[in-house]
Amino acid sequence: MGDEVVRFGILGCATIAKKMSAAISTTPGASLYAIGSRSIERAQGFAKEANFPTGSKIYGSYQGVLDDEKVDVVYIPLPTALHLEWALKAADKKKHILIEKPPALTAEDLSRIITACKKQGVQLMDCTMWMHHPRAAKVKEILKNRELFGDILEVHSTFLVPMEAHSPGFFTENIRVKPDLDALGALGDLGWYCARGILWANDYNLPSSVTALPGTKFTKDGVIASCGASFAWDDGRVATFSCSFYADFNVKLTLYGSNGTLEMPNIDTGDFKLYGLSTFEDMDIGWAPDIKEFEVNTDRFQESLMVERFLSLVKGIENGSTGVDPLWSTIAMKTQQLIDAVNLSIAQDCTTIALKG
Amino acid sequence: MGDEVVRFGILGCATIAKKMSAAISTTPGASLYAIGSRSIERAQGFAKEANFPTGSKIYGSYQGVLDDEKVDVVYIPLPTALHLEWALKAADKKKHILIEKPPALTAEDLSRIITACKKQGVQLMDCTMWMHHPRAAKVKEILKNRELFGDILEVHSTFLVPMEAHSPGFFTENIRVKPDLDALGALGDLGWYCARGILWANDYNLPSSVTALPGTKFTKDGVIASCGASFAWDDGRVATFSCSFYADFNVKLTLYGSNGTLEMPNIDTGDFKLYGLSTFEDMDIGWAPDIKEFEVNTDRFQESLMVERFLSLVKGIENGSTGVDPLWSTIAMKTQQLIDAVNLSIAQDCTTIALKG
Repeated sequence: MGDEVVRFGILGCATIAKKMSAAISTTPGASLYAIGSRSIERAQGFAKEANFPTGSKIYGSYQGVLDDEKVDVVYIPLPTALHLEWALKAADKKKHILIEKPPALTAEDLSRIITACKKQGVQLMDCTMWMHHPRAAKVKEILKNRELFGDILEVHSTFLVPMEAHSPGFFTENIRVKPDLDALGALGDLGWYCARGILWANDYNLPSSVTALPGTKFTKDGVIASCGASFAWDDGRVATFSCSFYADFNVKLTLYGSNGTLEMPNIDTGDFKLYGLSTFEDMDIGWAPDIKEFEVNTDRFQESLMVERFLSLVKGIENGSTGVDPLWSTIAMKTQQLIDAVNLSIAQDCTTIALKG
Repeated sequence: MGDEVVRFGILGCATIAKKMSAAISTTPGASLYAIGSRSIERAQGFAKEANFPTGSKIYGSYQGVLDDEKVDVVYIPLPTALHLEWALKAADKKKHILIEKPPALTAEDLSRIITACKKQGVQLMDCTMWMHHPRAAKVKEILKNRELFGDILEVHSTFLVPMEAHSPGFFTENIRVKPDLDALGALGDLGWYCARGILWANDYNLPSSVTALPGTKFTKDGVIASCGASFAWDDGRVATFSCSFYADFNVKLTLYGSNGTLEMPNIDTGDFKLYGLSTFEDMDIGWAPDIKEFEVNTDRFQESLMVERFLSLVKGIENGSTGVDPLWSTIAMKTQQLIDAVNLSIAQDCTTIALKG
């Protein structure tokens, strides 16, 4: 491949794929090359709407994209239930895979995808975009600062998106709550971010136990519409999260340390707050947290930074300078294991599920 | 008693009692009248430091305060383990009782105190000061506003105070972690605020189940130094809280509604934020919460407002215009039941405890 552009092919015409198309087409070295849909008309419409360049390939099937030997990377924004089949087929065709979260319905399915990617020497990465925003790196730097943050003791994460209120018919129409397409519901769609954020803050150490919180809500088809969980590590660290399709929009990752508290609001902004080194004024009254407000600016969209990072991994592999970076499949797997455990705990009436680190 | 001042007597020389002395002495109609300690010298030193007026009564025993017929109200800031004995004795002497939180070690003990107060026709109130700050009333007003907040769906409360870091020796010396004095540790001292805040936000409806979160930490004497819990109501509402003597100072009550999220930081300030009516911009990206910042100002300390409220209850009872207000013992009891249930769940390896509403 050398200095050539890396060609991206997209499977399916999901809404999110439009945003990703823009990111791909504006990333130097990447080329928005192919789109495949079960309907050629839909693929044509999508290519037009997403400003695919002249000469792009438009296929009336997903397989068309995979069979195109010029496609280097496949981006998979299909409903989760289709991930296993199409990721395996893409890996077999030696395509690098950028896959929407959750990458699979179960850790077992994801394990099959990872094995296939390893066998074919292709890179796998799930699309958890906020990790690629420069805010994430800045927060990590502060988490490692003993004076400013200290030891991480607990994490609380919320991911609440009022789908039904803003998309009437969501609970009856949307694929995110279809048992045969996205059976994990809010847990896969929103809880994925919570679980990933908690893992990320804890240097990807898996907790030793996972316990669903009482009060899971289901759609009438039995898909999770709202749930929460509690994680515990053997050294005393704890974490909780809550995800829901009902409550008004609220996304926050809060990290509690021995010397400070760090709050990251939203998932696509550069701001965060550090409440640090509280001044002890009086045993019973006066705690005065010193609040520092941070803003990590970038003129790039985080999805574009994600594409750029994936591109550099792919280029390294293709020109032989590096191998596949195992970090991304490792953290995808750990996140999926947490989702699996929460799901199992919910099914078992909030029993605590032990995990092997 | 008529238009006379209401005379307050204090049992013990706790640090918090200094703050309360200032509140009592500056509240019109209240008189800082008596202090009792097991050591007359300590009582004398306290009275001097807390600026007791000339002519105040200084006793070398708690009983001295109770035996003084001029004392109308007894404020009890003693270690929790002593509350039962002294609250019962105070009620027997027909004193109205303002008692530090937690009012008792168990709901059973509190029930005995409440029964004694009822029998003697005296008012009981626990000292949960933030409820008396005008911010609380303003927040309640917004919680009842369908457009701004909607239905309450979940609550998360944190009360983290890094005691050891700021009071070296805390875990070995302080009464708040002495098994024979304050056996509830952080759960009673800090978790009380969390449980009360959650109840308050839910119109004092008890949840139907209480489950401790894995990861409780204990001092070497077996007292709770850090813990969390999850509550669930039959109608789907949920709540979680976390309290700890380890993490840096962080106090927040967050209320998640169907139309907005309301954040109340700290417990003694007037500010809060409402993230409301999120604008749906794009299925996958653009949620834009409209953030409203509120500041409820008062030139009064909340403890002074608490004393004032208690005073008006006492005056109403004494002049026969009203009876004892049952609200305060009812909410004390419900909070104590939650603390009891969390404690029991911790002892039973995080088993879910069913509560009767």
